[in-house]
Amino acid sequence: MSGNPTIQTMLNRKSIRRYTDQPVADEIIHAIVRAGQQAPFAAQLYSVLLSRKGHHAFGAPLLFTICVDAYKLARIMEKRHWQIVSNDLTLLVFGIQDAALMAENMVTAGESYGLGSCFLGAAPYIAEKIAKQYKLPPRVFPLVQLVMGYPAENPPPRPRYPLEFTLFEDTYPELTDEMVEQAMHQMDEGYLAQDYYRKAGYIIPLEGEREESFDYDNYSWTEHISRKWGQWHRSLDEILSQLEKRGYNISKNSEP
Amino acid sequence: MSGNPTIQTMLNRKSIRRYTDQPVADEIIHAIVRAGQQAPFAAQLYSVLLSRKGHHAFGAPLLFTICVDAYKLARIMEKRHWQIVSNDLTLLVFGIQDAALMAENMVTAGESYGLGSCFLGAAPYIAEKIAKQYKLPPRVFPLVQLVMGYPAENPPPRPRYPLEFTLFEDTYPELTDEMVEQAMHQMDEGYLAQDYYRKAGYIIPLEGEREESFDYDNYSWTEHISRKWGQWHRSLDEILSQLEKRGYNISKNSEP
Repeated sequence: MSGNPTIQTMLNRKSIRRYTDQPVADEIIHAIVRAGQQAPFAAQLYSVLLSRKGHHAFGAPLLFTICVDAYKLARIMEKRHWQIVSNDLTLLVFGIQDAALMAENMVTAGESYGLGSCFLGAAPYIAEKIAKQYKLPPRVFPLVQLVMGYPAENPPPRPRYPLEFTLFEDTYPELTDEMVEQAMHQMDEGYLAQDYYRKAGYIIPLEGEREESFDYDNYSWTEHISRKWGQWHRSLDEILSQLEKRGYNISKNSEP
Repeated sequence: MSGNPTIQTMLNRKSIRRYTDQPVADEIIHAIVRAGQQAPFAAQLYSVLLSRKGHHAFGAPLLFTICVDAYKLARIMEKRHWQIVSNDLTLLVFGIQDAALMAENMVTAGESYGLGSCFLGAAPYIAEKIAKQYKLPPRVFPLVQLVMGYPAENPPPRPRYPLEFTLFEDTYPELTDEMVEQAMHQMDEGYLAQDYYRKAGYIIPLEGEREESFDYDNYSWTEHISRKWGQWHRSLDEILSQLEKRGYNISKNSEP
């Protein structure tokens, strides 16, 4: 059932963290963004910023910043004598989806041209810095960054949850301990077999009083994500503040 | 530059609102979800619900509900003696992205098998109803629904913003009135040329004191989205309440 080129392209995707310095032709960049644009959007609440100058993560020649963009919507509505009254949280729930749909199509389109890519997830926390750099108008929120270029490595696709831990028909089943452990096993053994974290040279440090009991022989995906979500971004203030500076206030209703 | 099958598949995509009753083979459904799983996720914060029973929108044989799922994450972390401390807004910003990446890959994968699909955007507003139907555990939030099946119509791909209104290098440009009008023209004339809203038989009614001055000869995309975002979802309460019922509280920090 992997018998068509699009499915093959998608199943073969993996994040690339080493690039050649071969530049990417303008026509290919344009085709990638155009393919992104044909996703099924709520309201085209997207913009894509591109930087080809300077040094980007992993030596990639291209850095895209995919933004939630309600500024263009507001400009269009103004010309039609309307203003946005929907609350900002609703706008974001749909805007984040629109930007992510665009981003994922760009990833797949890039892959189809032999380009590798890697998401950089920090954008929401450095939104104001990115805004200054690209001179973003209000209501443009940098959601995710994507480096892209011709790969200088060819790792295997990374492990994922079992399909039985992903797709549920009619009812979300009671997840037994065995099912959870089976999913953990598939993720952890899969990453260990690829020696992923050793090659990446990265173990998330423990905060507080926990003592390190892992090394690259047993540190794997479930421990990694546990340390992220068990330690990082405790406070709401940072993300709320970044959103507010970009013109999204999700703690009150819009002005009438 | 449209010279590969994956790009062709993506550029040819359009939402399908009429389906044959031909069932979709299990193997194809599984391949579609598997392709979805290879997207570059923050933390696999997704689950996919499937319904093949009953009547779905547009007569489609398949109804997928793509959810933000932090329940599985919590179960895994518990086994590693961790708990989620990240604030719920951060969890949602990444979870909405993960679910949307999955959803977009499923759309593209479906298209590659000759299947059509259409997003149904109401899920966040009927989250509690969906939760009861599928017996969702806490922290599983239905983000978007996707009907899918073999198409009984073949409309053209729909208009999108000009590339110059989408992709900005180095600096977000000052958008002149001419640029905004050009983008509006491309969207509106494009939809009118396809007679889209007349065929859909749908004009969003005006609320309040505004008087209707449009008919199917001039009602098009920019007026349509203006009426949505200029009239709908004024209050935060509904979406906040749906999120809270599903275990996401974005107005306070997590418990320590």
